[in-house]
Amino acid sequence: MDFSSMSCSDFVNVLASSEPVPGGGGASALVGAVGAALGSMVANLTIGKKKYADVEENMRECLQKAEDLQSRLLDLIRQDAEAFAPLAAAYGMPKTTVEEMMAREAVMEPALREAAAVPLAIMETCCEALDVMHELALKGSRLVISDAGVGAACCRAALQGASLNVFINTRSMSDRDAATQINRRAKIMLDDYIPLADRIFTNVQSKLFEKN
Amino acid sequence: MDFSSMSCSDFVNVLASSEPVPGGGGASALVGAVGAALGSMVANLTIGKKKYADVEENMRECLQKAEDLQSRLLDLIRQDAEAFAPLAAAYGMPKTTVEEMMAREAVMEPALREAAAVPLAIMETCCEALDVMHELALKGSRLVISDAGVGAACCRAALQGASLNVFINTRSMSDRDAATQINRRAKIMLDDYIPLADRIFTNVQSKLFEKN
Repeated sequence: MDFSSMSCSDFVNVLASSEPVPGGGGASALVGAVGAALGSMVANLTIGKKKYADVEENMRECLQKAEDLQSRLLDLIRQDAEAFAPLAAAYGMPKTTVEEMMAREAVMEPALREAAAVPLAIMETCCEALDVMHELALKGSRLVISDAGVGAACCRAALQGASLNVFINTRSMSDRDAATQINRRAKIMLDDYIPLADRIFTNVQSKLFEKN
Repeated sequence: MDFSSMSCSDFVNVLASSEPVPGGGGASALVGAVGAALGSMVANLTIGKKKYADVEENMRECLQKAEDLQSRLLDLIRQDAEAFAPLAAAYGMPKTTVEEMMAREAVMEPALREAAAVPLAIMETCCEALDVMHELALKGSRLVISDAGVGAACCRAALQGASLNVFINTRSMSDRDAATQINRRAKIMLDDYIPLADRIFTNVQSKLFEKN
């Protein structure tokens, strides 16, 4: 199911329901796509403006990156839903006898790893988006600076949201070394990029208060 | 134009374009609706579970509130776009002669006030959503606790995002007393609810690390 072709209202309504997908992972990917799109918007409204001619080339690069990130994040909504199906099937397997438990475990472990890999990819994509947003907030048109700030807040939420979907899957993995390694990668991204998102937001906010 | 009936991809693509709406305000409302919907999901997946029978009544109340907030936030996407039209028209008015400037100012001031009122309403709705999310994260099913954390992160982003759309409009208002009053209301919400969102997120994260 390609949830990104669903209307926004329908997506929100099925998210709200007890349907297994979309869940927090798909929601994070959508919010990240909204964030990246705000980056594209800032670039689009800066390109071609005389006042910003000296950053035109830079803005074009930002636009290309933001558009790519935005379509990757939309696709990650689908990937997240697809990774959930084998996991749900594994959770549904019987676990009464030793044989059943072993068969279940053999299916469960790779399913968990895949279900953690997709939100990890969402996180990586949001970090890239925040790097672009940083540049857009510094060099983009002052008229749309608030949109760069909103974009940073969205990418921050998507990064945090996706991290919880990494952790909820790694916590059930049997291979603790692999789980620890995945968790470490997620934590490094949170440690590096949440402060960047906050810096972008605070800078935008204080610019809006220069004459307020 | 009712943007919430647009597909998620189309919404993201038109947001990314140089089209005047949707912008950061509409994006914030959508992200808030996604957050509230995650709250509904947590309630829906807790209601009817034997283990959570003692909070059943409470969860039903949370569900009702979350569903209401989610539909109000979806409607605020439309309201934000509608409030932008008269503002865009005012910005387009000539300002060469004194008469023109006065005519422009007469239209501009109420348009700015309305364009600030909608994101202020988005903020208020997100604060209500965070109160509900707080309860859901504490009492909802442990199996979907990550979704309450993602919901809190989304409502936080929507709250922050909407605040920038309040400030970008108040900064141009001539009535500085009115502007200051609106800014104060927005700042109080940020001061009260950003820490609550962070607390919800941190609690969820540490619960996921109890066995990770």
